[in-house]
Amino acid sequence: MSRFRVSVHIVPRTGILDPQGHAVADALHSLGFAQVRDVRVGRHVVVDADAETPEAAGHAVRAMCERLLANPVIEDFEIASIGRP
Amino acid sequence: MSRFRVSVHIVPRTGILDPQGHAVADALHSLGFAQVRDVRVGRHVVVDADAETPEAAGHAVRAMCERLLANPVIEDFEIASIGRP
Repeated sequence: MSRFRVSVHIVPRTGILDPQGHAVADALHSLGFAQVRDVRVGRHVVVDADAETPEAAGHAVRAMCERLLANPVIEDFEIASIGRP
Repeated sequence: MSRFRVSVHIVPRTGILDPQGHAVADALHSLGFAQVRDVRVGRHVVVDADAETPEAAGHAVRAMCERLLANPVIEDFEIASIGRP
């Protein structure tokens, strides 16, 4: 049994309104960053978990996303990386 | 001028208490994910911006992080990727 660090990106689904992203874009424009076209804000979750293999760790974190971490109605998630802590 | 998509990870600094991460870890244990050792929750921000080069886009987003997106007292940020929308 080894320990693995799995990073997940959870982002608003395409087409879903992202009020937090809009607020950040407006604030960036106010600060003078006129080149900003769009901002989307999601969550970056890092899970340290014990597993036999990296594949098993990724599989477990996928199950965690489906059961708790992500809201499948409005969010998409993807495993960004699997490594060692 | 081209459009670039820059992804940023903003995470609690090492050693800083992460109450949201602790709450998620406890909830995962309650759901039976006993293999979870630690969870840290940060933000995943995706900025679409116009720039001459990918380097210029990354430089601009770094400035945005320093001025607005990240709180340098308690958070670290890193540019995760620079690509095309």
